Amino acid sequence: MKTDILIIGGGPAGVVAAVTARKNYPSKQITLIRKEKRSVIPCGIPYIFHRLKSVEQNLMPDKALSDNKVDLVIGEAVKIKPEEKEVILKNNDVCGYDKLILALGSSPRLIPIPGAEKEGVWLIRKDYEYLTKFREAVLKSKKIVIIGGGFIGIEFAEELSGIDGLDISIVEMLDYCLAANFDQEFAMAAEEKIKNKEVKIYTGMKVKEIGGDKKAEYVELDNGEKLPADMVILSIGARPNIDLAKEAGIKTEEKGGIEVDEYLRTSISDIFAVGDCAQTKDFITGKNIPIMLASVAANEARIAANNLYQLRLIRENKGTVGVFSTYVDGLALGAAGLTEQKAKEEQIDYITGQAEAPNRHPGGLPGAEKIKVKLIFAKSSEGLLLGGEIMGPESVGEMINILSLAIQQKTSLFDFNTWQIATHPLLTSAPTVYPIIAAAQNALAKFVL
Amino acid sequence: MKTDILIIGGGPAGVVAAVTARKNYPSKQITLIRKEKRSVIPCGIPYIFHRLKSVEQNLMPDKALSDNKVDLVIGEAVKIKPEEKEVILKNNDVCGYDKLILALGSSPRLIPIPGAEKEGVWLIRKDYEYLTKFREAVLKSKKIVIIGGGFIGIEFAEELSGIDGLDISIVEMLDYCLAANFDQEFAMAAEEKIKNKEVKIYTGMKVKEIGGDKKAEYVELDNGEKLPADMVILSIGARPNIDLAKEAGIKTEEKGGIEVDEYLRTSISDIFAVGDCAQTKDFITGKNIPIMLASVAANEARIAANNLYQLRLIRENKGTVGVFSTYVDGLALGAAGLTEQKAKEEQIDYITGQAEAPNRHPGGLPGAEKIKVKLIFAKSSEGLLLGGEIMGPESVGEMINILSLAIQQKTSLFDFNTWQIATHPLLTSAPTVYPIIAAAQNALAKFVL
Repeated sequence: MKTDILIIGGGPAGVVAAVTARKNYPSKQITLIRKEKRSVIPCGIPYIFHRLKSVEQNLMPDKALSDNKVDLVIGEAVKIKPEEKEVILKNNDVCGYDKLILALGSSPRLIPIPGAEKEGVWLIRKDYEYLTKFREAVLKSKKIVIIGGGFIGIEFAEELSGIDGLDISIVEMLDYCLAANFDQEFAMAAEEKIKNKEVKIYTGMKVKEIGGDKKAEYVELDNGEKLPADMVILSIGARPNIDLAKEAGIKTEEKGGIEVDEYLRTSISDIFAVGDCAQTKDFITGKNIPIMLASVAANEARIAANNLYQLRLIRENKGTVGVFSTYVDGLALGAAGLTEQKAKEEQIDYITGQAEAPNRHPGGLPGAEKIKVKLIFAKSSEGLLLGGEIMGPESVGEMINILSLAIQQKTSLFDFNTWQIATHPLLTSAPTVYPIIAAAQNALAKFVL
Repeated sequence: MKTDILIIGGGPAGVVAAVTARKNYPSKQITLIRKEKRSVIPCGIPYIFHRLKSVEQNLMPDKALSDNKVDLVIGEAVKIKPEEKEVILKNNDVCGYDKLILALGSSPRLIPIPGAEKEGVWLIRKDYEYLTKFREAVLKSKKIVIIGGGFIGIEFAEELSGIDGLDISIVEMLDYCLAANFDQEFAMAAEEKIKNKEVKIYTGMKVKEIGGDKKAEYVELDNGEKLPADMVILSIGARPNIDLAKEAGIKTEEKGGIEVDEYLRTSISDIFAVGDCAQTKDFITGKNIPIMLASVAANEARIAANNLYQLRLIRENKGTVGVFSTYVDGLALGAAGLTEQKAKEEQIDYITGQAEAPNRHPGGLPGAEKIKVKLIFAKSSEGLLLGGEIMGPESVGEMINILSLAIQQKTSLFDFNTWQIATHPLLTSAPTVYPIIAAAQNALAKFVL
């Protein structure tokens, strides 16, 4: 078998690479190889247990591939031969390529917790069969301990709290949940929401052991406390899948992903890497960061697939503005760029501005809820936006994207001063108190005066 | 009486000017004069009839003024004496000033429709007492004809359709409603929604006469058709209040507002004009445009109030990106910058990109609705974004603000290619199909290939 453009991996990175390649190279043969017969939507996984009623409801349809005349091969790539420009599959099939895009994804991170191998301990695998069994096991459980209070841990806890009769706990090593992405005041609001759902939260706490005979029976904390559990869920992050690349002689980072340049080219010519398996550079600090998000993956896939045969879009990749959102029992939280905590760690001289406003005007309209905004600007560098956090109702999911665009487009606190916004009584805050602008104004007052 | 900073007008422009001036000049005396004892929220007016239950529910609280130590004077300014730096009130009080900010607002536009003076014909006045009577009259009406199918006309019709037993019609001169702000495919979707609420729409139709004895009894159209009406609402736009300025010798446009420079300074020194009463320049075309929006007013007020005594924020005013949103029976519609129609009229060489996606992922999640995006980019000028339209669920109210920031920050279709977005199953479209990026990708394909 020989194809023009070969993509390994069927997650968001692989699919977007395939679709974008088709747009750019209408006459090329494009082939996508993936292990899984059926592909799950990664960010939808927390919601298969209750809201979605089944794993089937969370499948990525293959229609995008067939609509774009991408040949789909179900199989496992076990070896890349860069000299021969060939990929070997587990069934010994050989597939030649002109251009190879690695979209190998990531796997659950394993940390050496004694007892993690026990029955009843589950990982977040993007695998249809595994998740189907996982779902069945959840529905038979009574006491679940989630280890790791990041996005996934929080979203699992919230979703599972919708199932009657479950006793749920989260154990988080850091001082509060979501600490990697939010400053304390925002993270605490999420914790409050989770606690209202009767989820118990143990923060600043390491796990000593997952105890029990063959099967998990309890989680023992550093302080000796034992949390009874018939199920333990490990949500302690992910690590990039790099083995296939490494074995082929492609350069990888010490503890991170496949090394790539700004066009997502690897160290071996005609081989690209995109998504979770690829190295990611922070937009502001320029450092490699362990961000693994479907949205970043899609982005990298677009850049690579636009530039496979020639540099069609010059100097596109500006680095990754980490931007996240989550939703906890009616409270949406979003973060873009640097948190205040992170700015401190990076020793960046910054000023903050904060504001709150109802999301309707007048605030007495039915359904009005409070939006809270915090912005972080560089004190030097013309007051550029470095980061922001927003929480409130659903519309926060899009408001945070305003901030990510603002960071990318080098928006300063002066620019926010003249930013035109559409406001509507039934859709947004009032123009007089719109909280992103109000927060920028508060920062401006500190900056100018 | 003598004050440092005097503001005439208590609408959004006046209030934001006062609050911003306080932030910038902590020790100055700031005085705001307004005619009305109680100030209504302009954009909330359509919603006093049904959703808000009363005009009281739509008042702007004076707390922002008192919190910021702004002296509020209820009174009518009848004369400005620029030489003496004094304003004369109707009760003959005299108020001296150092800096004067005119936030005079706008009034309903009057066009010479025969019969417009009849009893039962109502205008959209931002006046508490008038609106209270208006509301009572609506609740006694049976057949209402709304003349003018712009934002206000549409929003009135939708709100009134929530009241049982009302027969409602809209008459619009242009070929479709909302034609000034949306391309046809978006405007038609809004019309559909309105029609589903059993509102009758007469487009491409002029009004010949408002007929009836002393009181309005019917509206006669150009084609002779007579629409029975016991109430007629004129929503045919607004004109800037400029008389006070004109009489004081301040330059005004022929058919528009008070002439201002980029710092909102009028032709007479130490006098500024902001909001509906001031001239507005389009961000892209540089032409004067008749946009009168609270959000634009707030913007202008901030710029003026930041630069009253010295130019603190140099070259701030970049012109007005018209950006609007409305909400019709569960469908939110937003528009920013130029429509395709407008780009044609301005003879700008453009390309468009369109996309649709559900606002949840997987799309099978409860509450998932479709979002439709259309973007208009300059074919030259490095593919800069000129405008965009979005429709769908509530989050469109904030998505359109992404586009307005994008226009202001000179975002090109290449920039959208690398834009990082936060996506979440319960809050946004999937990263693989996020419709703003997908629309930009579709435009990019036309641009590059």
